[in-house]
Amino acid sequence: MLCVRIRIDLSYDGSDFHGWAAQPGLRTVQGEVHRALAMALRLPQVWVTCAGRTDTGVHARGQVIHLDVEEAVLLASAGRAQLPPAEALVRKLNGILDPDVRVHAARVVPDAFDARFSALWRRYAYRVADGPAAYDPLTRNHVLHWPRPLDLGAMNLAAADLLGLNDYTSFCKAREGATSIRRVERLAWERDARGVATMTVLADAFCHSMVRALVGCLLAIGEGRRDVAWAGEMLARATRSSDIHIASARGLTLEEVGYPSDEELADRLLVTRNRRQESELR
Amino acid sequence: MLCVRIRIDLSYDGSDFHGWAAQPGLRTVQGEVHRALAMALRLPQVWVTCAGRTDTGVHARGQVIHLDVEEAVLLASAGRAQLPPAEALVRKLNGILDPDVRVHAARVVPDAFDARFSALWRRYAYRVADGPAAYDPLTRNHVLHWPRPLDLGAMNLAAADLLGLNDYTSFCKAREGATSIRRVERLAWERDARGVATMTVLADAFCHSMVRALVGCLLAIGEGRRDVAWAGEMLARATRSSDIHIASARGLTLEEVGYPSDEELADRLLVTRNRRQESELR
Repeated sequence: MLCVRIRIDLSYDGSDFHGWAAQPGLRTVQGEVHRALAMALRLPQVWVTCAGRTDTGVHARGQVIHLDVEEAVLLASAGRAQLPPAEALVRKLNGILDPDVRVHAARVVPDAFDARFSALWRRYAYRVADGPAAYDPLTRNHVLHWPRPLDLGAMNLAAADLLGLNDYTSFCKAREGATSIRRVERLAWERDARGVATMTVLADAFCHSMVRALVGCLLAIGEGRRDVAWAGEMLARATRSSDIHIASARGLTLEEVGYPSDEELADRLLVTRNRRQESELR
Repeated sequence: MLCVRIRIDLSYDGSDFHGWAAQPGLRTVQGEVHRALAMALRLPQVWVTCAGRTDTGVHARGQVIHLDVEEAVLLASAGRAQLPPAEALVRKLNGILDPDVRVHAARVVPDAFDARFSALWRRYAYRVADGPAAYDPLTRNHVLHWPRPLDLGAMNLAAADLLGLNDYTSFCKAREGATSIRRVERLAWERDARGVATMTVLADAFCHSMVRALVGCLLAIGEGRRDVAWAGEMLARATRSSDIHIASARGLTLEEVGYPSDEELADRLLVTRNRRQESELR
């Protein structure tokens, strides 16, 4: 029996989902994707693995998943379509899924590709409209409305102290035995022409609720409740504190996940499986 | 009794509205704005005039309205707020309105300012995602998903034939006695990095359903059902034809309305009142 591994790229509006992970009786993205794939491939059930397990209300523009399927099943699912089977699968899935989940692409990848363990980095964006001029009803599902003006200069000074290879325990939900050491390569705020402030954060991986804790910390600095040094102080403390608020899920979007080239995949898989088996890769 | 004229800039997601114009028993943008203003100003009723009366499902990012109110009423409405009355009004309105309408700014303007008749131009955008790579669930409320790929080059060649001062009867709903002569100054499609195609159209004014008819005409050319010359031929025919489909409201957004400077307002008002009293200015 010949199996192939399929990579699927997808986006979703997290507003009406109880997060990524399948849970009985709740509408989750994984649950909906499982249901659609089972229908499209005419299988009793399927299982997919994702790059970043998003929480309730968090969105994704560049989520990546993989699954294994018998080659014969994939070919049969394409039926009489004049398209390559992976392309036919994209059409079928978009025909089955509700409009708040869309599949962008599907392709057969090397067996060494793993949506979670092969990922080199994850990039998230957090969007805030901090005044009436920036409030846009058309994007209110994924841009947080904030009632007070934010000082992005102060937030960026503070963000610089949070960069690098660090123990991010202060920004992570406690988990037995899991490491909170991450490498944050980019963390900066920018304001667009309309006035919407967007934070971009890129790291090898994130622990649970880490991005929203980073945002919560920087929002407190941006509105002047805390001074610029506070972010670095919280990081150095290396214990989770209730002083840092977890920012609302609404503003958070998983934008992109980076992978090595197909040739480098096998090496990468070996490294990360060994190093991070016990840890949360989000 | 001293009255002042107030200009208010606002945005809305048209998805859940029966268009702009107030209608008994239906949720409309004007109806909601009337209700919110009456509450904020503690008046039994108010009446606002807008720059562009959008149809059911059409959105706005830069709608402009005006209303007249007694200066004493405006001052009293600000109450003990430490803000200028117009700024206090913005806060109050956003506190009353549902999240699918947001007020960006309010200010007292010269009496000669008229949201409808002073407008020099209206700019609309129409957004289409013509393939799975461009489908974005986060913007599905205002970007139309189109199942077939569009040739933007052909659409732009055709669009060039629709520019200038012309009789746009072919693209207008018939109306007794109303002129369909408009000056279209810009009409072009662009594709962004994600693949979303956006048409920008700028004209002195538009007749009813004109933008969506222009889009419907160009979509037929973009997907190859009609050739490039067809748009100019339809324009020259100068009669409304069922060959031109009215594109869905979902993709259409009123983006911006242009006005003269405060000093030039009085002259402008005189010109347009005389010339266009009978015509539809949208």
